[in-house]
Amino acid sequence: MADHARGKLLLIGGGEDKTGDRVILRRFVQESGGSGARLVVLGTASATPAESSRPYRDLFLELGAGSTLALPVASRLEAQRPELCQHIREATGIFLIGGDQLRLASILGGSCVGQALHEAYRQGAVVAGTSAGASALTQVMIVGGGSEVGPSRDAIHLAAGLGFLPEAVVDQHFAQRGRIGRLLAALAYQPGLLALGIDEDTAVLVDESHSSLEVVGSQTVTILDGRSCNWSNISEQTAQEPMTLAGVTLHVLAHGHRFDLRHRAVVLENPKDQADPV
Amino acid sequence: MADHARGKLLLIGGGEDKTGDRVILRRFVQESGGSGARLVVLGTASATPAESSRPYRDLFLELGAGSTLALPVASRLEAQRPELCQHIREATGIFLIGGDQLRLASILGGSCVGQALHEAYRQGAVVAGTSAGASALTQVMIVGGGSEVGPSRDAIHLAAGLGFLPEAVVDQHFAQRGRIGRLLAALAYQPGLLALGIDEDTAVLVDESHSSLEVVGSQTVTILDGRSCNWSNISEQTAQEPMTLAGVTLHVLAHGHRFDLRHRAVVLENPKDQADPV
Repeated sequence: MADHARGKLLLIGGGEDKTGDRVILRRFVQESGGSGARLVVLGTASATPAESSRPYRDLFLELGAGSTLALPVASRLEAQRPELCQHIREATGIFLIGGDQLRLASILGGSCVGQALHEAYRQGAVVAGTSAGASALTQVMIVGGGSEVGPSRDAIHLAAGLGFLPEAVVDQHFAQRGRIGRLLAALAYQPGLLALGIDEDTAVLVDESHSSLEVVGSQTVTILDGRSCNWSNISEQTAQEPMTLAGVTLHVLAHGHRFDLRHRAVVLENPKDQADPV
Repeated sequence: MADHARGKLLLIGGGEDKTGDRVILRRFVQESGGSGARLVVLGTASATPAESSRPYRDLFLELGAGSTLALPVASRLEAQRPELCQHIREATGIFLIGGDQLRLASILGGSCVGQALHEAYRQGAVVAGTSAGASALTQVMIVGGGSEVGPSRDAIHLAAGLGFLPEAVVDQHFAQRGRIGRLLAALAYQPGLLALGIDEDTAVLVDESHSSLEVVGSQTVTILDGRSCNWSNISEQTAQEPMTLAGVTLHVLAHGHRFDLRHRAVVLENPKDQADPV
């Protein structure tokens, strides 16, 4: 929806295939320009950035990327180094590996590297993240919370993320870790957000204008829309009490299916079946 | 910074003067059109919306507003009523009273009334909030936290707000409740945000293009800019451990002074003294 959006976003739910067809990672390379791609792997989310970035660098080269550079940005001080920012500005694709999304937001947010990421994106680069790297790309980010719990205020901890997808909040390892309760809690705080629960080895690819997203990968993406919610008691409950939240709209999408972000509707395969925008 | 921003925002730190010169409330009426103003008082943040809205309605009429309507939107169900939305769409100024910001976000977020607020704003209406009403206007909102504590991850609880000021996070009753520690914690999560600590009987007025803000009122506004931060250990600390955060830029502004939101610099009174944008 942001008019300045220029590149694509690829948000991966973690656990993406690295040995088989590698559908998601291959798509990242392709969207970034294939043999002409200049990729940067950002290891910031990991406590061992250099070691954890290397396998991705090797994979992207195997998948035909023109060049791939692993950047070991592990601290706020490094995130302010101008020569690292220059590499990011010149990239056609940037991949944020997994780890801890709080490391990503607190180390990169507002730093030279953080600003360079936005510049590259405005110039058309693909910005991708897996697991923590996906969660950190939204403006409001899930920092942590419970798994396999019902929704309550304490089921979720939120903070500011890197700001690439202002209209959504993203959870990852979604089905695999039983996270519907905490994602509903995130939605209950502000039902106007779109809540995306992305399974492992599954991703959403958001287009340049934020008008639609496409699901890529072997599992599913769960999309929660709270605009239709007509009963919520989150503000009356104590932090641990389970909450009531009525009227949420839920969609589940598998590989190849698309979701219209502007009208908040699944894009039907046959255009004649497409409902009018609400 | 958002290109679609059309109205002004008035964020008040709570405890605004209601018996003396009423500088802030008078300014709200004036910016909304004075004798031509059509005002709506939204009591949603309060547990007693009707009773708490009435004094504001009377005050605005005393201060010369053309018309003032108090809307008792106390639940998600009411926030979906089309006739209430119509009142908001037609308003030239909307005032969110204090209470609990989680009520505002969870009851209005994405609802018909919440969307009408954004429509009115895009059409040029002034959107104002005091105390919880101010905190809820940003995209990332402070839900709660400690007072008179140092910064730690647990010193602050964040969630999604109503999305009118994506670039900032706002705390209120700032000096009066010793909230610098928790505001620094909010900034540490994502140092790219601008953190505004607004004292009681003090407000910031954000212009239509989000290019600058002006301070109005008897106390001060503290502005924290974390982009210059070059050392942070928030992601390495436990939730209660005090954190280190180095290199934050701090400004304090009193009545009549302005801050350039694009270049993140205080606007000097003599233009010749103004530093070049960084």
